[in-house]
Amino acid sequence: MMRRFVIVGHKANTDGNFKLNDMAGGAGRLDVLLRCINSAFFLSHSIRRDVEVYLVLLGPSKPPVTIRLSGSEIRYLNPDERSTGSLIRNALLKAKDDKEVSSSPGIYVSRRGLEDVMKVLADTEIVYLHESGTGMENTEFGMETDLTFVLGDHMDLTEEEENIILKYNPIKVSLGPEILHADHCIVVSHNILDRKRKVKGK
Amino acid sequence: MMRRFVIVGHKANTDGNFKLNDMAGGAGRLDVLLRCINSAFFLSHSIRRDVEVYLVLLGPSKPPVTIRLSGSEIRYLNPDERSTGSLIRNALLKAKDDKEVSSSPGIYVSRRGLEDVMKVLADTEIVYLHESGTGMENTEFGMETDLTFVLGDHMDLTEEEENIILKYNPIKVSLGPEILHADHCIVVSHNILDRKRKVKGK
Repeated sequence: MMRRFVIVGHKANTDGNFKLNDMAGGAGRLDVLLRCINSAFFLSHSIRRDVEVYLVLLGPSKPPVTIRLSGSEIRYLNPDERSTGSLIRNALLKAKDDKEVSSSPGIYVSRRGLEDVMKVLADTEIVYLHESGTGMENTEFGMETDLTFVLGDHMDLTEEEENIILKYNPIKVSLGPEILHADHCIVVSHNILDRKRKVKGK
Repeated sequence: MMRRFVIVGHKANTDGNFKLNDMAGGAGRLDVLLRCINSAFFLSHSIRRDVEVYLVLLGPSKPPVTIRLSGSEIRYLNPDERSTGSLIRNALLKAKDDKEVSSSPGIYVSRRGLEDVMKVLADTEIVYLHESGTGMENTEFGMETDLTFVLGDHMDLTEEEENIILKYNPIKVSLGPEILHADHCIVVSHNILDRKRKVKGK
């Protein structure tokens, strides 16, 4: 089973023209997305190979750009924000058109938006993390089904983005009584799925 | 109920003499501890005021140093690693002796080690996160009891450190089948407690 995370970066830089010292500012809260990458891939002593992350970046100056990170192929990934920021900047500098180009092992970049990404993932089970959803802990997932979680960065999805997602008939799930940062949502989702999988003996 | 997190930074810098561009390297994996701070305090639109973090730093050149961050008082805390690294460096530069000094609102520094910290927290329920523990999801906690979680950074606690903790008769709990980074452990612990509290109607 693959776990995919699609994260919309509403203000995040799309031309690579930012400083690694200013990723929370001038790069349009890229820091949030870097922490999402960390949360999606890292285990204590390894990388989750069954994970893929799609960052859909919508900030200046050339939106949209989608960066896809593939756990089965990725290399040179470290947990800290600065080194991951450097990989992402490098990817942005290589973006050409709507065809994916590889910028480093396991990292691909294209000028695709949310609608394009969702089309590619149409065959997976879409999970929309939302405070009004049912508790994920009590949600049944097919343990063989590929899951795709969609979430916003520091801002919720817009109505327009939500309408794109709703076309795919998502399961709406909530993670608990508190509203969490996107990267924390990914950590909790992984943990709930890890425990469910263990119970089912997979 | 207070939730406290004691994190031992085995190699983390104790004199403030490091560059904000090199926190994962020259500062002795300070990046791990900065992400722990983020995980402990941040909710989507607020800060968890009922949380306290103790970073016990044991790297060069003047170990030990303990930095205490108090959620009820803290200010100027942002989610990104770099800005929190700057607050921590500032605290290290103000460390004098075993008396706490405040370096900025809600941040206190002293030349205390793990043993000193545990003495202060002796009246709380100590939770030792360990893969061999019982599942936290199924552990009963007194919802009025102050909890103190103890965990290592990128390295497990040493035998000597573990012996200090064991004197306080900790509950040993595990978070799931996968072994997680310290900051991810904090996110998951919060989520499990949030959901337990909700069920109990607090």
